[in-house]
Amino acid sequence: MKSFLETLSEYPILSSEEMQSISTKVHIKKVAKGEILQKKGDLSNRIFFVKKGLLRSYSIDENEKEHIFMFASEDWIMSDLSSHAFNAPPELYIDAVEDSEIEICPQDFFVNVVLQHPEFGFSGTDKLTKRVAVLQKRVIMLMSASARERYENFLETYPKIAQRVPQRMIASYLGITPEALSKIRGEMSRRKTTGLII
Amino acid sequence: MKSFLETLSEYPILSSEEMQSISTKVHIKKVAKGEILQKKGDLSNRIFFVKKGLLRSYSIDENEKEHIFMFASEDWIMSDLSSHAFNAPPELYIDAVEDSEIEICPQDFFVNVVLQHPEFGFSGTDKLTKRVAVLQKRVIMLMSASARERYENFLETYPKIAQRVPQRMIASYLGITPEALSKIRGEMSRRKTTGLII
Repeated sequence: MKSFLETLSEYPILSSEEMQSISTKVHIKKVAKGEILQKKGDLSNRIFFVKKGLLRSYSIDENEKEHIFMFASEDWIMSDLSSHAFNAPPELYIDAVEDSEIEICPQDFFVNVVLQHPEFGFSGTDKLTKRVAVLQKRVIMLMSASARERYENFLETYPKIAQRVPQRMIASYLGITPEALSKIRGEMSRRKTTGLII
Repeated sequence: MKSFLETLSEYPILSSEEMQSISTKVHIKKVAKGEILQKKGDLSNRIFFVKKGLLRSYSIDENEKEHIFMFASEDWIMSDLSSHAFNAPPELYIDAVEDSEIEICPQDFFVNVVLQHPEFGFSGTDKLTKRVAVLQKRVIMLMSASARERYENFLETYPKIAQRVPQRMIASYLGITPEALSKIRGEMSRRKTTGLII
């Protein structure tokens, strides 16, 4: 898939001035594993398109415990849209789980310009409808599903990254302890080995 | 605020044929308290604009326990967008908490036509961005906030309906027992009476 910047560059209707304007708004950045891209309360709200690597967003509660909200690997967009929706500072931290290469642009430009012009190749309605549906599923799972069902849903949502994310982060995403996750994985693995229907 | 149908009718660019086409798609319905508008797995996916009254959406787990996903009172739109996003039957049940008057239209028409034409007065990007932000907050609250913080967030999200919804439904939305909710309300009420800062 083309990168965010490549897609924008091919927008056929733009004048050279508009193209120049975009190129000043979007830039490429290499980030090292562990580097923080956004903190809760930051004044600058941006979106991060992942060209290569893996990002995560998370909240930190009053006991300093991290709760992972989502992951974003290649071709995913990571952003805290609560900034744009409520005109407030972001609530989430965003950092790199792996060494990554990303494209960054201001959130207002992304929401007000890119998402509202399907010609850019990022249909806002499609992308946002999917995000709403994924979050709806996440809420329902958090309220009513067992830890094992939540883990299976994680594997469906993120089929490509389960092997790349440390177990403690998957546990944090699921809202369970690493020990509970280890037990679930053990059970699933044993059932697979013995040929039982999972 | 104008109703959904009234807003659509004023769309200035529509021809009389297009207007007629819309009027065949959107219809008004009076529903009685308790009436079910959508079941999990229904083949017909629709959106419900609330003119008067109160709807709720919810899932039912394998133990027949209800988990309330959201409420929608006057001027809110209720829908299960997972149908549209994943081309699958809806996951949620939707019914009326009060006698209500609603406008109904097919979900595909709403997402593909109404949301993609800001002239209708329903900017898809704005509405969906806000929904994403509200759901993000809900996930974070479910993962990391105390029951009392979740209740306070409910009162912020739904300031007008807290008095209209049965306590057992608020408890279901929060993911706690009615007894736990009653205790929280009692504590908050006592603190208010004694003048302590909440």
